Amino acid sequence: MQLVSYAEIAAARTVLTAMPPSVGPVRTPLLPVADADPARPLLLKPESLQPTGAFKIRGALHAASAVPEEARSRGLVAYSSGNHARAVAYAARAFGMPATVVVPHTAPAVKVAAARSLGADIVPVDAAERETRAHRIVEERGATLVPPFDDPAVIAGQGTVGLEILEDLDRLARPESTGEHLTGHGPANSGFARSNELVVLVPVSGGGLISGIGVAIKSVRPEATVIGIEPELAADAQESLRAGTRRQWPVDSRTRTAADGLTAEPSERTFAHMREVVDDIVTVSEAEIAEATGYLARTCRLVAERSGAVTTAAYRHRGALLPAASTVAVVSGGNIDVEDLVTVLAD
Amino acid sequence: MQLVSYAEIAAARTVLTAMPPSVGPVRTPLLPVADADPARPLLLKPESLQPTGAFKIRGALHAASAVPEEARSRGLVAYSSGNHARAVAYAARAFGMPATVVVPHTAPAVKVAAARSLGADIVPVDAAERETRAHRIVEERGATLVPPFDDPAVIAGQGTVGLEILEDLDRLARPESTGEHLTGHGPANSGFARSNELVVLVPVSGGGLISGIGVAIKSVRPEATVIGIEPELAADAQESLRAGTRRQWPVDSRTRTAADGLTAEPSERTFAHMREVVDDIVTVSEAEIAEATGYLARTCRLVAERSGAVTTAAYRHRGALLPAASTVAVVSGGNIDVEDLVTVLAD
Repeated sequence: MQLVSYAEIAAARTVLTAMPPSVGPVRTPLLPVADADPARPLLLKPESLQPTGAFKIRGALHAASAVPEEARSRGLVAYSSGNHARAVAYAARAFGMPATVVVPHTAPAVKVAAARSLGADIVPVDAAERETRAHRIVEERGATLVPPFDDPAVIAGQGTVGLEILEDLDRLARPESTGEHLTGHGPANSGFARSNELVVLVPVSGGGLISGIGVAIKSVRPEATVIGIEPELAADAQESLRAGTRRQWPVDSRTRTAADGLTAEPSERTFAHMREVVDDIVTVSEAEIAEATGYLARTCRLVAERSGAVTTAAYRHRGALLPAASTVAVVSGGNIDVEDLVTVLAD
Repeated sequence: MQLVSYAEIAAARTVLTAMPPSVGPVRTPLLPVADADPARPLLLKPESLQPTGAFKIRGALHAASAVPEEARSRGLVAYSSGNHARAVAYAARAFGMPATVVVPHTAPAVKVAAARSLGADIVPVDAAERETRAHRIVEERGATLVPPFDDPAVIAGQGTVGLEILEDLDRLARPESTGEHLTGHGPANSGFARSNELVVLVPVSGGGLISGIGVAIKSVRPEATVIGIEPELAADAQESLRAGTRRQWPVDSRTRTAADGLTAEPSERTFAHMREVVDDIVTVSEAEIAEATGYLARTCRLVAERSGAVTTAAYRHRGALLPAASTVAVVSGGNIDVEDLVTVLAD
């Protein structure tokens, strides 16, 4: 299977940055975490700060931009546990198209309400049916499906996260001229400038995000380590990657985790990418995910959803399984119900 | 009195951006708020994402960079309700200097603990004594005082927030070429690209932040409106600005607000800046501040402290007093005790 290329991701970035910036994705910064272990400095990539609260806006806007003029009036369709639905609703509105999103009954209220408030038509179904129902709507209406991950345009859009990480790391690693000529004596430097080693942690569900980021990172820094993070309760991608072949878990099993954005399973396409660009997948427990969600709010001043906090959970609780190197943790989303946020803060 | 100039702020920016980026301030983005009133689009400038959780790092690093080599071993001294203390502790550590911070007994635990964990020596005093005690330590030890706001280097450092806002607004307002050549039909644009009107909302305590931002904004966009926001319970700057002369409120009165970062009063220097570059000061109630703090966490996925949320409170609850224009709200800090965060989320 043909993998998405670095050039396709770079082209997606050109499309996204050419959009009016108040519509296009936010250029999120890398945030140094002041109280991280100095031996393995931690940078957060807070995709929770996107207008829709998750990285999904990148792939959705990129896919929407490719819909031909004559197909626009028939609209976009998405199936999603929430964040992709919201992103497709947002992208459809940006391009003046109608949107229909098929969501599982189990999707969190905050995500469904957000898609609805963006004008999308919401179709709730059982989790196992969401894909087939979406395809039926596409056939009936001639609408354009924007798949959550099994799509080259979507993967290329998500891969722009990786390009931005590389750009900011370049800046962090630049030579230590760094103002010494201005002050006579510059401030102490951090590990980022000295270390060439890099590990990038990315949440894994359907695998679109890590496919795109992995291609971007490995194309430019082939020596870097790209590690996927999954909940223990939805570790089908870990089992698959280690077996070298896709292992499918029943949907009832995958949906046990409270990280509601990580319950999809990789497709043939994303699994092919992962075999190429992902070094390993590490799992975290439900308690570790909850702790990290609270930590991000308390210490890093970021409201993350549990699915977005799994990478921070791995950094904090699975350090022994990760390379001791400069670490980038992608915080993929921040759409958490307020009651759940209070719960993790109270722990 | 000589005001800080645009050139001094631009020079401060050169110094700060020349620092190793893992030590220097984060280049915070402007975040569009998706559910804002389309007639007056809202952008947040989240200084809560700085490594110390507040904009204060800018002025502190700028002032620390100017300390001569021979004075470094005698260290830095600060007096502060918390965020400035933490910033000076951070800056001292970055330059390998000792730090002593004088904090009022009323300072929130989260802020004091953070300064201590950065290696600063903490001296707790009554709020009214903090300034005199800091000056005594300076005399006894030959240390360098970094004032929280009454200092040109500090004001110039804080002013870099304004330069970044201008830079991002330029990008937002660029001509609408915006990708139409790529898609045949670009996405709908927002108000930012069309409107020339701009209002910038800045929290006011001692006035260092609004002095610096005001000079930066008015130098480049003299037609823009710069409005300070204060708690009703600490509205001495509003009263002073409207009277045209400094009106001092007793410290017991100013410290009634739960916005613990906004209890200082402008100095002669900052008041002189404010008369020149601030159009008005608007106040918000304690309930409005609490509501906005909860809103920022729930809807914008930002953990802000109450002092940082006053600008969002004004946007949401004092819209009738503000120009109906594109609005930038500076979210000045995010160091809130977790119990207080839970309180505002529960409301």
